[in-house]
Amino acid sequence: MTTTPYELYYWPSIPGRGEYVRLLLEDAALPYVDVARQAESEGGGARAVVAARRGDLGGVRPWAPPILRAGDHVVAQTAAILDFLAAQHDLVSATARTTALSHQLTIADLVEEVHDTHHPIASGLYYEEQRDAARERAKHFVGERLPMLLDYFESIASGPFLVGSEHTYVDLSMFQTLEGLDYAFPRALSQITSRTPNLSALRERVRERPNVARYLASDRRSAFNEDGIFRRYPELDAVVA
Amino acid sequence: MTTTPYELYYWPSIPGRGEYVRLLLEDAALPYVDVARQAESEGGGARAVVAARRGDLGGVRPWAPPILRAGDHVVAQTAAILDFLAAQHDLVSATARTTALSHQLTIADLVEEVHDTHHPIASGLYYEEQRDAARERAKHFVGERLPMLLDYFESIASGPFLVGSEHTYVDLSMFQTLEGLDYAFPRALSQITSRTPNLSALRERVRERPNVARYLASDRRSAFNEDGIFRRYPELDAVVA
Repeated sequence: MTTTPYELYYWPSIPGRGEYVRLLLEDAALPYVDVARQAESEGGGARAVVAARRGDLGGVRPWAPPILRAGDHVVAQTAAILDFLAAQHDLVSATARTTALSHQLTIADLVEEVHDTHHPIASGLYYEEQRDAARERAKHFVGERLPMLLDYFESIASGPFLVGSEHTYVDLSMFQTLEGLDYAFPRALSQITSRTPNLSALRERVRERPNVARYLASDRRSAFNEDGIFRRYPELDAVVA
Repeated sequence: MTTTPYELYYWPSIPGRGEYVRLLLEDAALPYVDVARQAESEGGGARAVVAARRGDLGGVRPWAPPILRAGDHVVAQTAAILDFLAAQHDLVSATARTTALSHQLTIADLVEEVHDTHHPIASGLYYEEQRDAARERAKHFVGERLPMLLDYFESIASGPFLVGSEHTYVDLSMFQTLEGLDYAFPRALSQITSRTPNLSALRERVRERPNVARYLASDRRSAFNEDGIFRRYPELDAVVA
């Protein structure tokens, strides 16, 4: 366990995948510094993330943010960071650790599919350069994949948590994902939620957790926007067949 | 630790993501039954995978194969299965567990990008129905993403393993991924490997591990084909810029 605060490195202008890490840290009241949100004169800003990617933190060079520095350890990949923090602070029971990781990875698959609705051809191109393919991909996502994925999560959310009777970071991640879907695909989501009461209840329960509620009301909470994963492009929010 | 053999559930006709689990099981000489490769009359075949996805194994209902049954536990998601098996059998040191998982997730990102070169619009459509978008996506993958990703892995493979001085399942996964890239993108890969000597050495070292060598020579080893993740479509194997 680290005695110095954790350091989170993530792009300061979007919630993105960093927000999944922030929710765990906030919910568990773990002290952390959101490095890139510090002033550039204090070593913050996006350039701190660039330096971390380059390997300037020492330890294992990470592929991409979010990146967590925990004392001498540098951990990258959202699900690995969540699994690491949960194990370090007994936020998940030993027997539930693998199940939590497994569910988090399915959420990550869903998040990746959301990203690819607006970037089906290349993450290095602008949305406007791949709009036709995006429209096509989003149609399949909204009409086929999203209902299948949410029906699946609904079927395992009766515990009433996603990992049985135990609150875990997976519930926080599902909350963030549903918030994002509501931002990016409000029409499509509203057509599905009538048959996903477990997920809706879970979402509200997370929102009302004291530490989460305080965080959501604070200026540390990052709003969705059109540079992130969940983007509001009305032309992609098709009606479910 | 389970006393009965592990049961692996994965589509019998492709190597796919199941092959990453098989490589760990074979390398560590862990007893397992490859259920879907058994005769249908003995409960095998693809229908065993369908039943497992439906939740017929009990325990937590999995989203997708590969699925591992370990006694009373049912584990899904490739990286979660590998992390679980490595922890159960001390195949990775406690301090390296998170690093191994993190690297495995970056490999999974690469594998997902390979999949999307031939399925950029929808996994529910045939390749032939999305060939134009596939050509476009593959051009960006081969020209930008693949070199970046392999250069990254090269930079962390000097340990000489991917997790420092310790052989882990991550090396097996990198081997399988390089084999798949060589099958799907032989021209593109040959242009990159001249500057990735660490990865080339790692690949050959894995191939020569006694249990791996025995496995590769056996009829249990699954060949790449055009139904899997790594597909040989010459029109997607562009020349790196």
